[in-house]
Amino acid sequence: MTRLIQINANDNVAILTEDASKGTVFPDGIVLLEDIPQAHKVALKDLRKGDSVIRYGVVLGYLLHDIKKGGWINEKSLELPLQPSLEDMEYGQSVPFSIPDPPLKVFEGYDNGPDSYAGTRNLLAITTTVQCVSGVVDQLVSQIRSKLLPKYPNVEEVVAINHAYGCGVAINAPDAVIPIRSIRNIMRNPNFGGEIMVVGLGCEKLTVDKLLSPEEINAENVLMLQDYPGYASMMEALLKMAETKLQALNRRKRTTLPLSKLCIGMQCGGSDSFSGITANPSAGYASDLLVRGGATVMFSEVTEVRDGVHLLAQRCVDKEARNKLAYEIGWYDDYLAKGAVDRSANPTPGNKKGGLSNIVEKAMGSIAKSGHSPIVEVIGPGELPRKHGLVFAATPASDIVCGPSQLASGITLQVFITGRGTPYGLAEAPVIKVCSRNDMKEHWDDLIDLNAGGIVTGEESVDEVGIRLFNLILEVASGRKRTFAEQYGLKNFLCVFNPAPIT
Amino acid sequence: MTRLIQINANDNVAILTEDASKGTVFPDGIVLLEDIPQAHKVALKDLRKGDSVIRYGVVLGYLLHDIKKGGWINEKSLELPLQPSLEDMEYGQSVPFSIPDPPLKVFEGYDNGPDSYAGTRNLLAITTTVQCVSGVVDQLVSQIRSKLLPKYPNVEEVVAINHAYGCGVAINAPDAVIPIRSIRNIMRNPNFGGEIMVVGLGCEKLTVDKLLSPEEINAENVLMLQDYPGYASMMEALLKMAETKLQALNRRKRTTLPLSKLCIGMQCGGSDSFSGITANPSAGYASDLLVRGGATVMFSEVTEVRDGVHLLAQRCVDKEARNKLAYEIGWYDDYLAKGAVDRSANPTPGNKKGGLSNIVEKAMGSIAKSGHSPIVEVIGPGELPRKHGLVFAATPASDIVCGPSQLASGITLQVFITGRGTPYGLAEAPVIKVCSRNDMKEHWDDLIDLNAGGIVTGEESVDEVGIRLFNLILEVASGRKRTFAEQYGLKNFLCVFNPAPIT
Repeated sequence: MTRLIQINANDNVAILTEDASKGTVFPDGIVLLEDIPQAHKVALKDLRKGDSVIRYGVVLGYLLHDIKKGGWINEKSLELPLQPSLEDMEYGQSVPFSIPDPPLKVFEGYDNGPDSYAGTRNLLAITTTVQCVSGVVDQLVSQIRSKLLPKYPNVEEVVAINHAYGCGVAINAPDAVIPIRSIRNIMRNPNFGGEIMVVGLGCEKLTVDKLLSPEEINAENVLMLQDYPGYASMMEALLKMAETKLQALNRRKRTTLPLSKLCIGMQCGGSDSFSGITANPSAGYASDLLVRGGATVMFSEVTEVRDGVHLLAQRCVDKEARNKLAYEIGWYDDYLAKGAVDRSANPTPGNKKGGLSNIVEKAMGSIAKSGHSPIVEVIGPGELPRKHGLVFAATPASDIVCGPSQLASGITLQVFITGRGTPYGLAEAPVIKVCSRNDMKEHWDDLIDLNAGGIVTGEESVDEVGIRLFNLILEVASGRKRTFAEQYGLKNFLCVFNPAPIT
Repeated sequence: MTRLIQINANDNVAILTEDASKGTVFPDGIVLLEDIPQAHKVALKDLRKGDSVIRYGVVLGYLLHDIKKGGWINEKSLELPLQPSLEDMEYGQSVPFSIPDPPLKVFEGYDNGPDSYAGTRNLLAITTTVQCVSGVVDQLVSQIRSKLLPKYPNVEEVVAINHAYGCGVAINAPDAVIPIRSIRNIMRNPNFGGEIMVVGLGCEKLTVDKLLSPEEINAENVLMLQDYPGYASMMEALLKMAETKLQALNRRKRTTLPLSKLCIGMQCGGSDSFSGITANPSAGYASDLLVRGGATVMFSEVTEVRDGVHLLAQRCVDKEARNKLAYEIGWYDDYLAKGAVDRSANPTPGNKKGGLSNIVEKAMGSIAKSGHSPIVEVIGPGELPRKHGLVFAATPASDIVCGPSQLASGITLQVFITGRGTPYGLAEAPVIKVCSRNDMKEHWDDLIDLNAGGIVTGEESVDEVGIRLFNLILEVASGRKRTFAEQYGLKNFLCVFNPAPIT
């Protein structure tokens, strides 16, 4: 039976849990004035042109026309409020919240030494300096898989770190630091066990010294194709090099480790109006449990938090984090302006169809996945965090760009929350897909790993789903469970963020 | 034996055909003053700080210090000349040149009807609207390859048109027209025989109506993953759809066609100083033969022709082409300026090592591959040409971005010229790799399809190599020969050019 869900006592709209027809009657005397789709907003009282529309206790926008109690409020009804200023934002104002001790405090991972996060998978990564070599590396990976991998049962997979960067790019442009540090850090992801195997061409702009320290540049770690006489010869040398790395990786075993060895990413994509009240807050609860247990959790997506930036600033633990937040968000404002667009470029048509009227509404739902923990650090796209705890990694919101950026920042597992459904996956780390509605889970039963839809029907609470997600994260991190994307081998491109020009 | 090659009678530098030591004596009394590497420039007379350094009869730059006759001139010795202005460039001044009739006037291709170019390959292309679906499409392609393709022997391959575009992008940004038209045109490449198979998600920004006309949008051509209940179900539907397309493609046969049905792309990458005097002018000769035979030949790479733009303008047949040239080059100037870089971002370290001191020198060599034919049309990146003949397609110089742009503009085969060697290949069209030096061919004998190095040693003329290349193009286009990249399955990403922001 369809219900209306109101999140905050101050809200003047609520959302429908099912499609509902004109005339449907709800408690408190609400009667729908027209057919309204699932997850869309219904006015809880008569509203006039210019009135604030309030959800999550926050102004989503101002009405462009009068709407009566029981009327439909969608993207056509709202004018965006002013964007929050980045100047002098308040910080250190985190609201106290209560969270129990996590039900589990250890997981089984691949240790990488005292100063590093542990791996959740044991993968051989072959890093390319430039797209030119990716055809060869793809053939290499396929040969390694058939000829070598069966001999090294403790190595779970071989992954080509192919990307579009490396040459034909403005390597000295100010913004080139982003793709360069991203690639440098991706190859050091904890899931790759510290083994470095770099394949270059020999005439690219992204020279190996931009990726490796001088002591790392040697024949064991780096192979340049132009140094080898022909295809057969380079393939032979590559297989030999890979075998040495496989031998080292094969000696690795899972051990019991504290949660402080975990680094997890949170991302959402294909969101709907339920994401912000079911899956995202549950992920936030799981995040709070992880953080309390000592883990590091990252959330991202600049354009999706832009309109709630003042709320993030309040949660920053110190001035340094607040200043970095203002810097990164400001950088992104400029980046969009250079391309003659602004935040209204987000949300997607799918978001709107799913009931998200504008970027303010999307932001409130997006931020929910960060739970209530204080933000200990803010990092730029592809940067490494220095602190443990909740981190805001200022990456694009694009799913396929956020993923590689978080991998560069060290995540070894990603939680991906979706309302409308996407088969997204990463080769470099397991991706747990969480959906916001029961019908999504029923529809994509063999793709969605966890369903938060019970919150809509009232069968489960946010905390209960959050604990289930926390447990699933540890199951997957410990290698006891493989996600659907892993089972089918669904892997997206490593779309490394390059805001600098192509030449 | 090492020789000095001077291209134009007005040149005050010549290049070495081999590494040569200090003291090496050449005719005309040139004695090397230091060890100078192969392909690098030697001063033919005493030059003073500020003097013009002239090669190809063109000023490469101005000396930053005195250099004596026999001295080495490299990237450290030269200041860039002013960039040619785009205002009021002369046009219609093409210099007359003589070219024989092409030795062959037909090839065996896949006809696509009276108004289209013919295919050189018969491929099933599966186009994605968004990167989100690429994991599923990769699995689909692998299943088609093993289960279906053997039943349809006339279909040569199945190709996933995966790209990084489609969502998480500023779809209404002014520059978004470039990636959108590129994808729309790539899926219509003549090598795909007019069969349209589009796989979308359902909530992406790049909606199918941006790629297809209303009458093309139907269940035979378009499948949206969100419409299917789960992975097994979508995979079943996708395989069924693919089979229908394979049945249609399997009915296609090669027929004898005139050269006017051919659309060829020219590109160079990993260039050295020899590229501009051996492989590129030979490719230019082959291009002139093709154009004379009625074919369309494209050349590209804006940053590499920027410093010779006035020479291209002179060859434009009309004001329209000249104006479009000025517009596209001007657009690129602005694009680079927005990223705080300029043309000096090109060349690459490899180019410099190969003796190309700066972008002016690289430009002269790059332009050589367009031969001497008049330029009938100038198009933007990913646009379709309307005329037959020599076309300048204003794409980035990046090999991996130029390739997809030319594919969008309709090329069915690419000639790729390299000095230093790259294993580059495309899944969508055969790529013939031509090298500039004998030692490159010896070094990469099983990767380079044609060697123009005999021009360095005097064993062959530019025209002779050009005729060999022309014949090889027709052999490959007719399916009688497969390139090395095709034999090994070397395929680069479809790096679609997206100058607009990621959101």
